[in-house]
Amino acid sequence: LKTTPSVELKIKHIDEMKFSVELHDGRTVKLDSSEQMDQSFTPMELFLAALAGCTAMDVQWIMERQRQKADKFEVRATGTRRDGDPKYYEEVDLEYTIAGPNIRKEAVERAIRLSQEEYCSVRAMLNDSVKVHITYKIASDGGPEQEYVYASALS
Amino acid sequence: LKTTPSVELKIKHIDEMKFSVELHDGRTVKLDSSEQMDQSFTPMELFLAALAGCTAMDVQWIMERQRQKADKFEVRATGTRRDGDPKYYEEVDLEYTIAGPNIRKEAVERAIRLSQEEYCSVRAMLNDSVKVHITYKIASDGGPEQEYVYASALS
Repeated sequence: LKTTPSVELKIKHIDEMKFSVELHDGRTVKLDSSEQMDQSFTPMELFLAALAGCTAMDVQWIMERQRQKADKFEVRATGTRRDGDPKYYEEVDLEYTIAGPNIRKEAVERAIRLSQEEYCSVRAMLNDSVKVHITYKIASDGGPEQEYVYASALS
Repeated sequence: LKTTPSVELKIKHIDEMKFSVELHDGRTVKLDSSEQMDQSFTPMELFLAALAGCTAMDVQWIMERQRQKADKFEVRATGTRRDGDPKYYEEVDLEYTIAGPNIRKEAVERAIRLSQEEYCSVRAMLNDSVKVHITYKIASDGGPEQEYVYASALS
């Protein structure tokens, strides 16, 4: 995947817990911590989107290179926070769902492994206090959905 | 800071490297990896926004509790990626800028330390391959901006 060597942004305080993130080219993300989020996000929501998005892009891309055309490709992510401070994600569950005319389990397993172990930049920055559990569902050639546990998650 | 115990989201593939992130309540973030990003973001941009946003919220909140009223509060973040895969941030530079009528260096240093060591959930998930460099600028009572290196960054 094409990447830029560095990323720069600036965060400005607006009021209360509202902040604005500005990227170099003017794109913005709003941050907040309230219950009325409108189109604002918490840092931990953005983090989970970054982690799940990173591996979603990898797996989609690797599946295409393996000539595994997916009609449907989704990644569900759940992050469960610690009770005390810092309230990081003790557990992250990632569930990949892939449907297509001829989706092979081995190809999906390999794509996930390459992402988790070699490509996903966000994954590579995490320490061991974050337990990542991975499952995937495959519906091949219009058949019923089969669910699997990613093998490396068992080790 | 008030937090929810868990975060859930779903990422759907749209086409090419375009994905849509959907939070439980319908908020969405668009992901992409192209040069025409419009209002899309890369996972690594979201990650840096999450990390800088997390500590920005902490430091702003702790400063208020220390009765250090800031008229201006900003955090600049730069992430420098590794050349090879995985292209994670080898270096992250965080620069806090705080201006106000009576901003004490010790209060800023303490707020940053509490964030980095006790509160920032995103920071707490990072491993040691990510080197975080921290500086801060203070303009107190209309005086000139003074720049400091966060002490713990020297150890």
